Amino acid sequence: MTDRATPSDTYSYLGPAGTFTEAALKLVDAAAGKPWRSVNNVGEALDDVVTGRSVGAVIAIENSVDGGVSATQDALARIPGVRIVGEYLVPVDFVLVARHGTALSDVRTVNAHPVAYAQTHKWLEANVRGHGHIPASSNVAAATALLDEHPVADAAVAPPGITDHHDLAVLASSIGDNASAVTRFVLVSRTLAIPERTGADKTSVIVELPSEHPGALVDMLEQFATRGINMGLLSSRPIGDELGRYRFVIDLDGHVHDERVADALLGLRRFSPRVTFLGSYPRADGFRPEVSARYSDEAFVEARDWLRAIVSGEPDAD
Amino acid sequence: MTDRATPSDTYSYLGPAGTFTEAALKLVDAAAGKPWRSVNNVGEALDDVVTGRSVGAVIAIENSVDGGVSATQDALARIPGVRIVGEYLVPVDFVLVARHGTALSDVRTVNAHPVAYAQTHKWLEANVRGHGHIPASSNVAAATALLDEHPVADAAVAPPGITDHHDLAVLASSIGDNASAVTRFVLVSRTLAIPERTGADKTSVIVELPSEHPGALVDMLEQFATRGINMGLLSSRPIGDELGRYRFVIDLDGHVHDERVADALLGLRRFSPRVTFLGSYPRADGFRPEVSARYSDEAFVEARDWLRAIVSGEPDAD
Amino acid sequence: MTDRATPSDTYSYLGPAGTFTEAALKLVDAAAGKPWRSVNNVGEALDDVVTGRSVGAVIAIENSVDGGVSATQDALARIPGVRIVGEYLVPVDFVLVARHGTALSDVRTVNAHPVAYAQTHKWLEANVRGHGHIPASSNVAAATALLDEHPVADAAVAPPGITDHHDLAVLASSIGDNASAVTRFVLVSRTLAIPERTGADKTSVIVELPSEHPGALVDMLEQFATRGINMGLLSSRPIGDELGRYRFVIDLDGHVHDERVADALLGLRRFSPRVTFLGSYPRADGFRPEVSARYSDEAFVEARDWLRAIVSGEPDAD
Amino acid sequence: MTDRATPSDTYSYLGPAGTFTEAALKLVDAAAGKPWRSVNNVGEALDDVVTGRSVGAVIAIENSVDGGVSATQDALARIPGVRIVGEYLVPVDFVLVARHGTALSDVRTVNAHPVAYAQTHKWLEANVRGHGHIPASSNVAAATALLDEHPVADAAVAPPGITDHHDLAVLASSIGDNASAVTRFVLVSRTLAIPERTGADKTSVIVELPSEHPGALVDMLEQFATRGINMGLLSSRPIGDELGRYRFVIDLDGHVHDERVADALLGLRRFSPRVTFLGSYPRADGFRPEVSARYSDEAFVEARDWLRAIVSGEPDAD
Repeated sequence: MTDRATPSDTYSYLGPAGTFTEAALKLVDAAAGKPWRSVNNVGEALDDVVTGRSVGAVIAIENSVDGGVSATQDALARIPGVRIVGEYLVPVDFVLVARHGTALSDVRTVNAHPVAYAQTHKWLEANVRGHGHIPASSNVAAATALLDEHPVADAAVAPPGITDHHDLAVLASSIGDNASAVTRFVLVSRTLAIPERTGADKTSVIVELPSEHPGALVDMLEQFATRGINMGLLSSRPIGDELGRYRFVIDLDGHVHDERVADALLGLRRFSPRVTFLGSYPRADGFRPEVSARYSDEAFVEARDWLRAIVSGEPDAD
Repeated sequence: MTDRATPSDTYSYLGPAGTFTEAALKLVDAAAGKPWRSVNNVGEALDDVVTGRSVGAVIAIENSVDGGVSATQDALARIPGVRIVGEYLVPVDFVLVARHGTALSDVRTVNAHPVAYAQTHKWLEANVRGHGHIPASSNVAAATALLDEHPVADAAVAPPGITDHHDLAVLASSIGDNASAVTRFVLVSRTLAIPERTGADKTSVIVELPSEHPGALVDMLEQFATRGINMGLLSSRPIGDELGRYRFVIDLDGHVHDERVADALLGLRRFSPRVTFLGSYPRADGFRPEVSARYSDEAFVEARDWLRAIVSGEPDAD
Repeated sequence: MTDRATPSDTYSYLGPAGTFTEAALKLVDAAAGKPWRSVNNVGEALDDVVTGRSVGAVIAIENSVDGGVSATQDALARIPGVRIVGEYLVPVDFVLVARHGTALSDVRTVNAHPVAYAQTHKWLEANVRGHGHIPASSNVAAATALLDEHPVADAAVAPPGITDHHDLAVLASSIGDNASAVTRFVLVSRTLAIPERTGADKTSVIVELPSEHPGALVDMLEQFATRGINMGLLSSRPIGDELGRYRFVIDLDGHVHDERVADALLGLRRFSPRVTFLGSYPRADGFRPEVSARYSDEAFVEARDWLRAIVSGEPDAD
Repeated sequence: MTDRATPSDTYSYLGPAGTFTEAALKLVDAAAGKPWRSVNNVGEALDDVVTGRSVGAVIAIENSVDGGVSATQDALARIPGVRIVGEYLVPVDFVLVARHGTALSDVRTVNAHPVAYAQTHKWLEANVRGHGHIPASSNVAAATALLDEHPVADAAVAPPGITDHHDLAVLASSIGDNASAVTRFVLVSRTLAIPERTGADKTSVIVELPSEHPGALVDMLEQFATRGINMGLLSSRPIGDELGRYRFVIDLDGHVHDERVADALLGLRRFSPRVTFLGSYPRADGFRPEVSARYSDEAFVEARDWLRAIVSGEPDAD
């Protein structure tokens, strides 16, 4: 029996249970009541989608606490055939956990993923003075290792959901240094149908610059600026073949069904030797950008009608 | 019997016989053997075309010696419904003529159109020292006035063809200060069919800037620069309603059937509240611009195919 | 006795008395009570300034009715060593004059400079139906010719001041087709001292494009756009050596003593093989452009102080 | 006795002995024979410099295998008062090490820093099939942990220099997936004297965009493009206050003593509310960019002389 015969309804996520990625997956309506599959890294999650083992995967794409950004961006550039179909925001919030019976004043060593450690460093400096840091491979691993027979640390930095899954005591909550920090997750799918335009959409692309000359990046970005399109994320990633060569991961305001976005993508494609369309999807924050009349769908349609009339020899009504 | 029933085969030109415009009309193959109609100014010539009295009109558009440039550009902006369908270059060459029996040393006063006078001023200063200038309304009028009963001048500056039509003596030839000067003429027509693309074409437009802010003109010109399109003529003309408001008469390399030109026109139309397509037509000089692969028709077609595949949900082949 | 020993206090203008240029000269405070010298064309006026025969000259530079624009712009490009030191606006207003005893209904032929004729054409069509046009070399010449023994025309189009100097009857006033038309005049001088900055200033330059490649003009204009400097006049003039080569006459908002203008001029000079500074001078209309903080003098001074500190090895205070 | 009385001659580096950073420090001539101090992270290294405990520190800035890039870039943005004074390239080359007596076929689990693991993943997949990965906090920690009484892994991925310091067997050499990979290190110092211009220099800055509007990034990058300055590194880093706000870490070709670079920095400072000059220093690769005449020092000096003459009232020699 093939994948096609019985398409998977499983969703992959960077596990184990209790991670921020699991928290993001809880926000995906379509995934409710379906099987969830915990994987070890972004590459595995995307592979699940590409092979059809899963119908979708949730991966961190920006400002991640699970090592997300670069790994995700590079994986999306490397693995073709997936599309972003949704976006989800999860507040970055940490608790300090320990085995039951441990007091905050007992803590000498803290186990934490390096990124989580960096994001709670101020609080730990102030409240667990003189502590040592044991790096963990993930936030959940740090917490569960406390339950080992010979734990390497006295406490761990972990996501708030950790106590749903593991019998640990919370020594302190909301210990993140930046209360407004969030992580942005995306739902990727092999399904190539583009989500409908909502008016509050994002489009993500990966673009490689055509050559190294002064102004190449300016030329590329003007494809957006000259169509009144704002950028959210702009992230440069080394292509990897040599120092100084980059690809850019870019989030645009708008949907590929918006005329101005489609036109910018055409310009981008002509400009760049390699451009990858990652998807158009509703924004998690629901923000609807103002679009000036000049860049509205109507302006594009009107201009096309005007030109069509000219080319077919109708009198110029203007 | 209406115009439509018996379409005119007449060509209008700024006359009378002997003008540079007549010399340009001689270059129009289609006009050979057809009736030619001499008119007094560019407005009349365009009116002939608009009303159908003539099938075409030849008018000077750039670097004219007959007062052409501004008058033509303003007339083309004002009078809708005409198209440029051809371009012709005529060398600017002058002779000094007089009644038979007049020697160069006899000449005290020279009759000349102000523009022709300006273009022969150095020669006249050097060879007709101390002469006075009588302004004429046209080059031919200057010459024919010599045959009046009481001529106002001893000699006249005129186009070389003048002696084909009038019994005058040539006192000196090639008296223009700039041996390489040419005037560019265009053939305008009410026929809206666009001449076929030859690979050595020009496209002419008139564009009004949308508003007065720093950079509006840059934004407009980037419509061409970002598509690799060179400009020939760029002429600013006051719109006339107040100081500091301009429209621009622009010649582009390429044909509206070139993808990059069509795309630039679309961008222009969206950008500007008023843009007038004057026509695409073969260049008189036969120059074929090099077009980089990025701006070739193939690049446009390829990009459209790529985007179409994305939007219809086909996998991204890239 | 040399020019230097007894500097001239004369002002030259395009005469004769009664022209719009004379009306502009009346607006020049410094010229009150000084000798005025009537000349025949812009070249003569500039020559008077260059040779020291006059201390200043008033010439039409934009939207002229005396054949001004192109001639002035080309003369300024050709004749070095003069500076624009003031700007004056004169409404374009015409009267129809005739010999005493002539009624409007008697008028069959109208003598008028071609530009003046064009600007009164609608009125004349409506009110002097079927009239003939005799072109004149100047507005005043048209009027004074009416007093010849055998006048060539019945009436003339002339500036309102004409009746101050000549005994003519006004058949109709305010016959210009555009009631808001004005002509812009400039006062040029050999004096190279730049008028003080007033906050409502203009700077005029002439720039030749460095080469013919797509985007050269955009690159040039960005020198202004990237410094928040608006353009008033932008006029392209053929350089004259071949078709398609232009110089640009440009008016900028601001004074060379404004940091942003000085910086733009530096950029322009590096960019272009030929740039001519025509002058900075108070605007006739007194308009004071808003300058965003980013382009204020303070921003320039602060940036220089910042860079100076860096280069001299002071710690970066930022 | 204060720091000032006896300035430190120590160099800090991300230790312990055997790291790539130590390999980079070996390339620093001035550090030869001076005390070297091993620290745990980039923050500590910069603190050493700021407090004067060390005279310099070597830190990875791009394509790092020790977790460098983001951490370094963010630290440089956060910690003022340090300057980059040198650049060093170290090939990214790995060995697989184990305790003596271990054969490659014995290896079941591999200890490796996550970045090092990612860079040797292909080799390990092919040659140590079915292995498990134990993440380590550093490359050297992975290797030294093999010597623990109860090692967590059978082998470790480490830099080639590791066997200089630790008694381990090399199971395989050059196991990196990308043979041409290098890491770029910089030497930072509190010494504010800028290294002399060599003609093959880099300048590093950190710039925050002034506001979120379409084209802000284009406007910023045009500060370089309009001065013919190429960019090497362009890295966007979240400012951290909210999603979608970035600062950019930028390497420019050229030295602050190059006129075009100084001018671009002035433009940048006026443009951006926050720009940090990190330093100008000789390039490790010795590359000397071609600079067109338009952007040469001579062009800047000539333009300044020209403008100075204009402003001081000298005649325009042009």
